[in-house]
Amino acid sequence: MPDEAASLARRALPADIPAAARLLDAFNVEFAEQTPGVPALTRRLLQLCDEGDTLVLLVGEGPDGVAVLRFRSAIWNSGQECHLAELYVTPALRGKGLGGALLDTALREATERGALTMDIGVDEPDLVARHLYESFGFTNRTEGGTGPLMFVYERAL
Amino acid sequence: MPDEAASLARRALPADIPAAARLLDAFNVEFAEQTPGVPALTRRLLQLCDEGDTLVLLVGEGPDGVAVLRFRSAIWNSGQECHLAELYVTPALRGKGLGGALLDTALREATERGALTMDIGVDEPDLVARHLYESFGFTNRTEGGTGPLMFVYERAL
Repeated sequence: MPDEAASLARRALPADIPAAARLLDAFNVEFAEQTPGVPALTRRLLQLCDEGDTLVLLVGEGPDGVAVLRFRSAIWNSGQECHLAELYVTPALRGKGLGGALLDTALREATERGALTMDIGVDEPDLVARHLYESFGFTNRTEGGTGPLMFVYERAL
Repeated sequence: MPDEAASLARRALPADIPAAARLLDAFNVEFAEQTPGVPALTRRLLQLCDEGDTLVLLVGEGPDGVAVLRFRSAIWNSGQECHLAELYVTPALRGKGLGGALLDTALREATERGALTMDIGVDEPDLVARHLYESFGFTNRTEGGTGPLMFVYERAL
């Protein structure tokens, strides 16, 4: 666990949201996904944080990495469930523990907020991300890691 | 598309929630998953419906099937995203189109509510469910179905 880096991961304040939006925009540009652009993302993140179900984390001085957590009340227990919607580290600074610092902070923040589970959608070829999540105890198999694979199915409406 | 069955799928009213809870409890008993029991599930579903991010659908006279939809504001666009959290049909009545009726209604309700995407977590061996979702245009691959697999990663906190 990267202790020094972990100590740098922090909740984004409203003044940090434009920087968080720049990182998320770069994330989707890098992976050729659609992005509404930095101004629209900034407005949206501010709105989501205001609505209360979203927490944005940052790491590094740039900042150099961002994570977005979404919370909702669970169905099967009286706690919360946390979805790690986004996690991104700027390319030049990968391999230095910043992703781990974000994830470590995400787990602590989610626990403090009463979440009993955290889930993430990860594509098969994203081996660096999968290794990171697995090193933190996440699994893409049922029965605590011994069962079959769990898939995300989705469609546009 | 099972027209007659589809016409029977409907939003659960508060008075229907105990029946929805009985179906969800049977779901988890059938698949050896933990359940807090019908009274606790009833209270929780009423709370979630009250909080406004949850829609419960029922199908059949029993009722014989249930679906639970969760909504939240999307990050990358100004619409909603819908998570189909649960979909269950009582064993004796499977193969009659009730699952399709629930899913058809779920898609319509989600669209009406402003959702631009729907996602579902499905285990690899659940071939009947996977076939149902695929027949409605869902895919567990990126790039609209032509890319690599998408996994759910999760852990307890």
